[in-house]
Amino acid sequence: MDVKNLFANISTANRGEEFLPLFENANVKIERIVSHAQASPAGLWYDQEEDEWVAIICGTATLEFVSGEQVELKAGDYLTIARHVQHRVARTSEETIWLAVHLK
Amino acid sequence: MDVKNLFANISTANRGEEFLPLFENANVKIERIVSHAQASPAGLWYDQEEDEWVAIICGTATLEFVSGEQVELKAGDYLTIARHVQHRVARTSEETIWLAVHLK
Repeated sequence: MDVKNLFANISTANRGEEFLPLFENANVKIERIVSHAQASPAGLWYDQEEDEWVAIICGTATLEFVSGEQVELKAGDYLTIARHVQHRVARTSEETIWLAVHLK
Repeated sequence: MDVKNLFANISTANRGEEFLPLFENANVKIERIVSHAQASPAGLWYDQEEDEWVAIICGTATLEFVSGEQVELKAGDYLTIARHVQHRVARTSEETIWLAVHLK
């Protein structure tokens, strides 16, 4: 069995975001995202074609929605961001690990 | 936004396994499984119709495969169990939280 770890191989030098695909088939992509004190560029709103289920594995983050709603997230928090719900990352802690399941 | 937490609402009285669906559509079911010092019944092998991606959120566990292979898992470890790969839970710690993505 091929066992890997969510906390392995995280760049410490990096700023911004690192994306690592963990599993993918025709319907689903599971991805680790590591954010390093990251924020989406001002005025950039993600507007995705797919529903996304996301959980915070460690660290904290603030998600901002185009409605104005801000959501504070900590380890263990999870939510579903429905397709075309525009959102951005307002801030993250120095090392925030997300688990994202993209529902194609 | 409806935010919930992977560490919330865990039974302390329980033994065995607790299953909580977190998200489901036609292709995917995401589930939290909490094991309390659990082992599959001796001789019981899970033989699933679907691939399963699984990660340990906290705690430890030992998975056993029909091949005889035993895999020790700790927090952050993840693996894909292909359909029809027979396996069982040999043991878990007092509180082990799994995140399972069932790929229908």
